[in-house]
Amino acid sequence: MSQAATVNRRILLAARPQGQPTLQDFHLDEAPVLTPKEGEVLLRTLYLSLDPYMRNLMDEIGPGYTPSVQVGETMVGGTVSRVVASKHPQFAVGDLVLGRAGWQDYAVSDGNELTPLGDMKRPSLALGGLGMPAFAAYVGLLDIGQPKAGETVVVAAATGAVGSVVGQIAKLKGARVVGIAGGADKCRYAVEELGFDVCLDRRDPQFAERLAAACPDGIDVYFENVGGEVFDAVVPLLNIGARVPVCGFIAHYNDETSPSSPDRLPRLMAVVLQKRVRMQGFIILDHYADRFEAFSRDMREWVEAGQIKLREDVIDGLEHAPAAFIGLLEGRNFGKLVVRVAEA
Amino acid sequence: MSQAATVNRRILLAARPQGQPTLQDFHLDEAPVLTPKEGEVLLRTLYLSLDPYMRNLMDEIGPGYTPSVQVGETMVGGTVSRVVASKHPQFAVGDLVLGRAGWQDYAVSDGNELTPLGDMKRPSLALGGLGMPAFAAYVGLLDIGQPKAGETVVVAAATGAVGSVVGQIAKLKGARVVGIAGGADKCRYAVEELGFDVCLDRRDPQFAERLAAACPDGIDVYFENVGGEVFDAVVPLLNIGARVPVCGFIAHYNDETSPSSPDRLPRLMAVVLQKRVRMQGFIILDHYADRFEAFSRDMREWVEAGQIKLREDVIDGLEHAPAAFIGLLEGRNFGKLVVRVAEA
Repeated sequence: MSQAATVNRRILLAARPQGQPTLQDFHLDEAPVLTPKEGEVLLRTLYLSLDPYMRNLMDEIGPGYTPSVQVGETMVGGTVSRVVASKHPQFAVGDLVLGRAGWQDYAVSDGNELTPLGDMKRPSLALGGLGMPAFAAYVGLLDIGQPKAGETVVVAAATGAVGSVVGQIAKLKGARVVGIAGGADKCRYAVEELGFDVCLDRRDPQFAERLAAACPDGIDVYFENVGGEVFDAVVPLLNIGARVPVCGFIAHYNDETSPSSPDRLPRLMAVVLQKRVRMQGFIILDHYADRFEAFSRDMREWVEAGQIKLREDVIDGLEHAPAAFIGLLEGRNFGKLVVRVAEA
Repeated sequence: MSQAATVNRRILLAARPQGQPTLQDFHLDEAPVLTPKEGEVLLRTLYLSLDPYMRNLMDEIGPGYTPSVQVGETMVGGTVSRVVASKHPQFAVGDLVLGRAGWQDYAVSDGNELTPLGDMKRPSLALGGLGMPAFAAYVGLLDIGQPKAGETVVVAAATGAVGSVVGQIAKLKGARVVGIAGGADKCRYAVEELGFDVCLDRRDPQFAERLAAACPDGIDVYFENVGGEVFDAVVPLLNIGARVPVCGFIAHYNDETSPSSPDRLPRLMAVVLQKRVRMQGFIILDHYADRFEAFSRDMREWVEAGQIKLREDVIDGLEHAPAAFIGLLEGRNFGKLVVRVAEA
């Protein structure tokens, strides 16, 4: 820790957003860098992960989910950090660790939530393709979606941190994969680089018709991570016995009240009943104990073998995190969104 | 077959209903009784089952579900019949059989869909407590709902053919059971006779508050067979990891178009995600091969031991089937609704 580093920049939740968050809902604050006590380490944030679930935590939410961020508190988030001071027997200065230091330059930790990353070459991947979002893709697709060879799997946000991995794993399992993304560049990338069979632009006015045409045998697995119009186009195409892992519903995270008319619930329930659909929500934090090891082994193997490609969208500077996060909710990122807070 | 029986009364679908069916959507027709050919039997209907799923079949529906009844065709339905003439080696005159002869006095069958009932004392139970509705309760509750001892199970239409069995099996499995029914008489019956812990009147203006009060530990299993306001009151009470077997959505069977505002889908999906809810539709016809034998053994044992009580609401006369069916959709029956078409 150099002498200059006495100031810890933190991004606080300034106000609970009304609908789509704005820059005014965040506040860049400066505080002294804390000194670790016995049994603690001081962490310098290198990479901060930005993920859609954070939008939920900006609202007042009930028990059972990750707790809300309170107004005036530092925004939470997964981070890759370097240990810059240690009074903890298991961590040495220079160690690279995965943790949840949040949207700030520095954090003190008692080590409980830290995972050593060794000399990982692209440590930011611990936040994406080898971390939580890809793990969510793995558990949701394989444990809930259970695609069989020859089945049709549909996933939205097809070039995002979760969707890109869902589609690539589904291809490895022999499924036909139809991606949905925002814009021609992303669609081209999903097909040409990620190997999806088809990728449709969700902004296409004929989107629902094109999805039906792209799924001549219906949809067996729909990995739900966006909601909105995509979901509406998917529902009528679900096959008998279709599985719908519900990982996110990003199109509705900004909803203030229930949008008026029409009520889409009865139609969904009719399809769930008539098509014997299994729809299941999951929160990836529940699955680390049971499944992270298998994920980690499989994913490293696939990535090393070139069978799964990982794309990152790296933003420089903690101060740009709020704008980047707002863009994420609008689908403006292209790949896993990560903020480089300091040079590794 | 007596000489007088030359006329077969049949109830035809006269028109596809606009919303709630009316008597004008049915037509009582008379046709000659057919003569069985080689390999066929002539059946005299004794009991006709009336069940909510029939409402679906009155609409034009897509593939994958039981086929629609076409306008001008005889309404379909499960029946208990007596063989009154036989040119089939496996059936003799006088045999009692379970089949799907539909809403008519007589039917000719090649025997393929017939199940012999032996000398069953209350053969109408083959349509209810020992048949399809109770089987749906068994599979939906045990295979999808999977209640554990001490968990809270909520079921609507608590004195109906399905709900009454759901609640009683859940009690046998050690769950706490909260029923919902229409009116004080049904609620009293559910608690005093069926052994539910609580039963709430869905017409109570304070219904949602009373349901919350009756489920202080939340809801672990909601057996969905009604939809509507009951569903809305249940959703916020679902616990983490709750299971929702979807067996029916009777409150919406009469919907012509999506009711306007508010759209309840985003709220449902938020709960499915945050509470990791598993919601799964099922059609009981899919499960006969695998599970009917186990159901039949368990259910007979429970009924004989007095652990499960079965109540029937018997209407006399085929001609009253349309009105009785309309009443079923409005919740006017009290117990499994059966039409006695002829004396056993």
